[in-house]
Amino acid sequence: MYVFAFDHEHPRPAMELKDLLGGKGANLAEMTTGLDLPVPPGFTITTDACRGYMHDGWPDGLTEEIDARLSELEARAARRLGDPADPLLVSVRSGAKFSMPGMMDTVLDLGLNDDSVKGLAAQTDDERFALDSYRRFIQMYGKIVLEVPGEDFDAIFEGARDASGAGADHEVPAEVLREIVDAYMELVRSSTGEPFPQSPDAQLRGAVEAVFRSWNSPRARAYRQREHIPHDLGTAVNVQMMVFGNRDENSGTGVGFTRNPATGEPGAYGDFLVNAQGEDVVAGIRATEPLAAMADRFPACYDELLDIFDRLELHYRDMLDTEFTIEQGKLWMLQTRVGKRAGAAALRLAVAMYSDPKIRLTKEEAVVRVSPDHLEQVLHPQMVGTDLPVIATGLPASPGAAVGRVYFSADDSVDAAERGERVILVRQETSPEDVHGMEAAEGILTSRGGLVSHAAVVARGWGKPAVCGADEVVIGEGSFSANGVTVVEGEYISIDGTTGRVVLGEAELDAGTHPEEFDLVLSWADEIRSNRIGVRANADNGPDALRARSNGAEGIGLCRTEHMFLGERLPIVRRMILATTDEEEEAALADLLEAQRSDFVEVFEAMDGLPVTVRLLDPPLHEFLPSIEELVASEAAGEKLDEATRRLFAAARTWQEQNPMLGTRGVRLGIMKAGLYNMQVRAIAEAAFIRKESGGEPVVEIMVPLIVTQAELMLVRRWVEQTLDETLGPDSGISMKIGTMIETPRAALRGDDIAEAADFFSFGTNDLTQMTFGFSRDDVEGRMMSRYLEEGLLPRNPFETIDHRGVGELVRLAAQRGRATNPDLHLGVCGEHGGDPESIRLFWDVGLDYVSCSPFRVPIARLALAQAIIESEGRSEPEPQ
Amino acid sequence: MYVFAFDHEHPRPAMELKDLLGGKGANLAEMTTGLDLPVPPGFTITTDACRGYMHDGWPDGLTEEIDARLSELEARAARRLGDPADPLLVSVRSGAKFSMPGMMDTVLDLGLNDDSVKGLAAQTDDERFALDSYRRFIQMYGKIVLEVPGEDFDAIFEGARDASGAGADHEVPAEVLREIVDAYMELVRSSTGEPFPQSPDAQLRGAVEAVFRSWNSPRARAYRQREHIPHDLGTAVNVQMMVFGNRDENSGTGVGFTRNPATGEPGAYGDFLVNAQGEDVVAGIRATEPLAAMADRFPACYDELLDIFDRLELHYRDMLDTEFTIEQGKLWMLQTRVGKRAGAAALRLAVAMYSDPKIRLTKEEAVVRVSPDHLEQVLHPQMVGTDLPVIATGLPASPGAAVGRVYFSADDSVDAAERGERVILVRQETSPEDVHGMEAAEGILTSRGGLVSHAAVVARGWGKPAVCGADEVVIGEGSFSANGVTVVEGEYISIDGTTGRVVLGEAELDAGTHPEEFDLVLSWADEIRSNRIGVRANADNGPDALRARSNGAEGIGLCRTEHMFLGERLPIVRRMILATTDEEEEAALADLLEAQRSDFVEVFEAMDGLPVTVRLLDPPLHEFLPSIEELVASEAAGEKLDEATRRLFAAARTWQEQNPMLGTRGVRLGIMKAGLYNMQVRAIAEAAFIRKESGGEPVVEIMVPLIVTQAELMLVRRWVEQTLDETLGPDSGISMKIGTMIETPRAALRGDDIAEAADFFSFGTNDLTQMTFGFSRDDVEGRMMSRYLEEGLLPRNPFETIDHRGVGELVRLAAQRGRATNPDLHLGVCGEHGGDPESIRLFWDVGLDYVSCSPFRVPIARLALAQAIIESEGRSEPEPQ
Repeated sequence: MYVFAFDHEHPRPAMELKDLLGGKGANLAEMTTGLDLPVPPGFTITTDACRGYMHDGWPDGLTEEIDARLSELEARAARRLGDPADPLLVSVRSGAKFSMPGMMDTVLDLGLNDDSVKGLAAQTDDERFALDSYRRFIQMYGKIVLEVPGEDFDAIFEGARDASGAGADHEVPAEVLREIVDAYMELVRSSTGEPFPQSPDAQLRGAVEAVFRSWNSPRARAYRQREHIPHDLGTAVNVQMMVFGNRDENSGTGVGFTRNPATGEPGAYGDFLVNAQGEDVVAGIRATEPLAAMADRFPACYDELLDIFDRLELHYRDMLDTEFTIEQGKLWMLQTRVGKRAGAAALRLAVAMYSDPKIRLTKEEAVVRVSPDHLEQVLHPQMVGTDLPVIATGLPASPGAAVGRVYFSADDSVDAAERGERVILVRQETSPEDVHGMEAAEGILTSRGGLVSHAAVVARGWGKPAVCGADEVVIGEGSFSANGVTVVEGEYISIDGTTGRVVLGEAELDAGTHPEEFDLVLSWADEIRSNRIGVRANADNGPDALRARSNGAEGIGLCRTEHMFLGERLPIVRRMILATTDEEEEAALADLLEAQRSDFVEVFEAMDGLPVTVRLLDPPLHEFLPSIEELVASEAAGEKLDEATRRLFAAARTWQEQNPMLGTRGVRLGIMKAGLYNMQVRAIAEAAFIRKESGGEPVVEIMVPLIVTQAELMLVRRWVEQTLDETLGPDSGISMKIGTMIETPRAALRGDDIAEAADFFSFGTNDLTQMTFGFSRDDVEGRMMSRYLEEGLLPRNPFETIDHRGVGELVRLAAQRGRATNPDLHLGVCGEHGGDPESIRLFWDVGLDYVSCSPFRVPIARLALAQAIIESEGRSEPEPQ
Repeated sequence: MYVFAFDHEHPRPAMELKDLLGGKGANLAEMTTGLDLPVPPGFTITTDACRGYMHDGWPDGLTEEIDARLSELEARAARRLGDPADPLLVSVRSGAKFSMPGMMDTVLDLGLNDDSVKGLAAQTDDERFALDSYRRFIQMYGKIVLEVPGEDFDAIFEGARDASGAGADHEVPAEVLREIVDAYMELVRSSTGEPFPQSPDAQLRGAVEAVFRSWNSPRARAYRQREHIPHDLGTAVNVQMMVFGNRDENSGTGVGFTRNPATGEPGAYGDFLVNAQGEDVVAGIRATEPLAAMADRFPACYDELLDIFDRLELHYRDMLDTEFTIEQGKLWMLQTRVGKRAGAAALRLAVAMYSDPKIRLTKEEAVVRVSPDHLEQVLHPQMVGTDLPVIATGLPASPGAAVGRVYFSADDSVDAAERGERVILVRQETSPEDVHGMEAAEGILTSRGGLVSHAAVVARGWGKPAVCGADEVVIGEGSFSANGVTVVEGEYISIDGTTGRVVLGEAELDAGTHPEEFDLVLSWADEIRSNRIGVRANADNGPDALRARSNGAEGIGLCRTEHMFLGERLPIVRRMILATTDEEEEAALADLLEAQRSDFVEVFEAMDGLPVTVRLLDPPLHEFLPSIEELVASEAAGEKLDEATRRLFAAARTWQEQNPMLGTRGVRLGIMKAGLYNMQVRAIAEAAFIRKESGGEPVVEIMVPLIVTQAELMLVRRWVEQTLDETLGPDSGISMKIGTMIETPRAALRGDDIAEAADFFSFGTNDLTQMTFGFSRDDVEGRMMSRYLEEGLLPRNPFETIDHRGVGELVRLAAQRGRATNPDLHLGVCGEHGGDPESIRLFWDVGLDYVSCSPFRVPIARLALAQAIIESEGRSEPEPQ
């Protein structure tokens, strides 16, 4: 069966049939059958029909079903479609499972033709109304179904209106409207070679097909891509009796929420217009009145509406969004759905409905009502609706919005920040040498690089907004241009790291402060999680560790030691690299030891009593050396390089690599430069000892990066154990776990072997994704990822959400195999995916012991884990909103 | 039981018990029990005992077993160890499962002490002999068991000898030998703090332990590493009654082969010395006589030996290598084993023993007797034993030896070759711009890069010797230095691409020609293979394809199209990259189309009737652009770049990548530049059409590189099918398979999805290895591979022999999953591993339909596949030689 009347008795509540009826159709049926609300009668053509149409064209039998339902509708309305005396008019609207606002097509007033328009005039006793409805219908149908350019209709209408001397559209007199209708008819004939269809059946068939087709329009596809909605769902089509809010001054239309969707405050909320159609409210052409204004003008309808709102909330146990129309004093409900809400409102509503004695959400239901995106909004400043021009769009690399003056170098950014300016640092891409500028900036914009580029990773770690890989941004000397706009140094731009937009000028930002319900909802989430899986943070220093802890982190899952090698310590690192004798190398290592030790003391203190996983040095040495290209240029320019620079140059050449991501890094470097790891382990051990001596409780885990074989880990494990022994002796009371990153496909496949040498695995899903796909984060994301996503060659950006079927299988295999040989193996994840809600679901399913993410994402991980648990245990079905 | 007498009756023939008894022990027992040959009695301490010793020290009960066997030995010899009147002396020799010549320790004359030396003198009536034996024993035991430096003994001996006026060692008189013995005793006491052990039991225990320990000596470990012998096998120890070839002029010793091991010619072959010990023959101190010389001096022994040789050959059904001693006219067999043989001999012997009416090898046995290394020797020129100094050692990147004058640039190499010189091209590494120089050279030496670097891959493809990654080679201006030796342009060096050696000067080379048995043995191999798995070649042009076909290739498994983009076509490729309008791009593509088409015609013609798998363009575009570094230098030097160069510069920057191996290459580039693949498919289709028109039978398969998702392959498949349709139409009678490389871990894991869009998979095991390990071939191999192999962190270089447990699992998974969704899926491998015998075994086990390798390795693949089949079906146990 392809077509169901709104009052069809389904075996399950209609509101649960969104797959079949679409969201709009399901809720119309629910209001009709479940709540007995005043809904104009109609029927829904299912998504099955749409899918059938997309595959094989117009389904067999569909015409007959539509005819049958239409006859019932005509009987109930006591009018016939296209009746020259008293015509029934219908609307034809799309309605997919997930709301896609403004993306798909609607046709109103269908059923009008040269004859029935006269019947409408006679019945309403309002020729102007009838003709205006007809010209609107022709224009809408012409544009949507017949694909006649909308501007051509506009030109005719505006020409005639202005010639007639009418000031506004509704002042155009009937006789001019009649001319306009004639001109529209002529336009359709000349554009399509056919007359405008007069048969109501043909009109209906055309409109239904147009809605089906609109599912695959480029803008609809792009929207679904962005929102991660599958392309194969299809849309339902709703055919419904027209009611007219624009019939007269005793009519009107409005949009109403059962509570305030921005704040969550109680009380009906919305917009209302007298003598208008729904589209007028949405389009914002006329200034609307607040919903409460109805109380004066339509007191009975207003009371009825408030009563309906109460019934809807009780029935749906949620805040609802509705559309309604009053036709000559009678209230009609045209649509309802669970209302979209802002982050703060989501938190407030969840708590309020948990406390509401009639609604009584469970904690699980309340937790599911708050989406990770809601938390995101609350955690970061957001742009408040702005008219400023969008000049470029990049990847949403680190959430939140920022405003500042543009600077193009790290040093200039620092200088400007010291002058008290807000700064947006704009670079082609960033490198470790830019971090002081990134720190000084409010936000970061790069024209290259992806979601795990240096800029993105650092910005997320600091909770600083960033837009990356905005390839429309072309950086020149002291300015950048984007889509024809040139922005010079010192000019203001605003960036939105949640959407990727780059806006010219100073946007207004909201504060991004937590409402009081924030902590309560998260405490419920923690209660549901009840220590079955932990949340840690990736943090490299004391302040970050403190921030993580205050956000609820239960330890550090990744303490990178390479950041400790930068800044003022870079010269020492370079001394070590350049050392030609053991003594020189040891002296440099001794200096590094001291620096590292104090870093670790700080981190262990901040995380006292909680585990800290320290990763031994990971990046290739050449990251600590100057750029070869710059050196080549200096030399070619005839610059005389001093001895030190020449040596650095030679070292940079020696350590240069074709594919550094697959080169001498991680444990490979550790094995080539054994003194380095030894020094790091010594620094860790001494720091733990210092903490212990001062009464602290250091809980330290040492992690070896980039392992591919058991033998590697065995070797390094022996070294680490020996150094710990030498440094701490047998009676220190400090013991440390020793484990490894699982970040190469081989390590994952051979989790069984490797687990025999490991106390824990931590999945480095960034690198694992790079190697499993053969995608270099630096190269592929900026250049081809958007193309791949648009073309559907990848369902999701695998650096954002873990690739469940590829990388995810490796994670699952490694976990299974590792635990098979070492049942005590502790498992975690410390890649970027550790903070991504959809990836978190996989980590829960695989049975990891914890996820670790940026300190700023810890609350999101806490929420997402609770939701994953609820979903996996069927304790509440999460509702797509 | 840890100890077995040579005449112990085992339930299986002793020669099959090498695991337990070691090779030497098994063959001694076989000669004793199976053939009843005159073998001095003795016993073997098993490898079990050695393994036990390595784990937990001296095994319980071992002493008692040794004592029991020693008593039996004493009874049989009718003498006792250390007897002051008539002592039994024994040798203590190692004997592992696989021969490790010269790697491990031997102690002779054990049982001598201050008392028994007198007994020996009395019994032999030769005091000088007794004292000389004693001083040899002290020196040997002192060095091996007590670890006293051998030079210290030498100094004492030489000092005394020279002071005595004796010209040669055997002229040193008895009284001087007595002084030497005393000085040796003093040396041992002062070095070890203990007197030299006088108890024969203590001597024996010490010698056995020393042999056990020598298993783990660095040189033994290094040898096993090189020869891929597992470290956990352990060695057996053979204790055997001494017989003395140096007793008098009626004694002697020799080494004999049952046939000529260099040529395979029939007839005994070997070396012989009168009045000497076995060590003297091997050490080459005295000039030996040919074996036949025995006939005059020891006619009875010689006849007996020839008879023994016959019996051995019949018994072992192979050519044997023996050691024997004559003591006072009695022949003793001290050792036998299957003889190592040169490549040509292996082929000749296999055929001869197949035809021999008494030995009657089966074809399977004959095929197993020829190892891939044997074929390698026959296929490539080899250095004939040379005294020239080895100045560096690199990776054995392409087999065979070459001699030539050193040149450092491709252009200079071409010039020199045109002058008629032989050239060795020496580069840090090579790039596609060097190929004309590589072509002109006899061989290639690089100081960087690994076994799958550009130089190595190209050289192997051409069958041209290459040594790569010789990091001791430091290239300067017009010269290179290596280990202190400087070689200037134009000087001769010789390289051995089979071993990796670089030799100063002109080495002598043998021809590397096939003996006549070559084709016969390969035809047997093909018979055994009987089309159950095919052998194809990787070939990019007509001449290579012809060569492959003449070597027995049954098609082309990988026809790379990128080589077709170089040389004179490079400017066209650059025009395409620089195109700013569709017209410019199309014009450049049209020129490329013409060029590619003629390439394909040539290849299809050479392989007429056999399948040719053409891979669409794979490398990143920037490989076709100039080096950024050079451009930066030119610019910085103030050079005025012309417009064209500036545009190339900009394009090089645009396409530059951080990790090109994981960047925009393969299908990713194909999707970004759709015109490119379209042009290639058109060229392929037109070439096939041209061939068909001229009566040929083109069998073409189109292969898409670097797939990670089904959607990618689906998209490209649609494009390919559409272009084929447009170009060939429906009635061409030409149909082409469309398939993909499996070279990313994700593609392997998702073989099920991808197989739904593929007619075939071809495993690109080079890239798959790179990504599975996270090893960049360019960076990791040169820099860390040797370290990793030495430390045992990797059992094998995974670019040489496929990593069975990691990469191999992915191959297996992809094959299983692919065939599960597409039972008709055709499977092959086209990575370098396709020509590696050990990897071939895996490919056979996995059930691939063919392997594809360099044209020069086709014979080896044919042989190795037959051997894999024989082994997997248990049709003959291959014998390690």
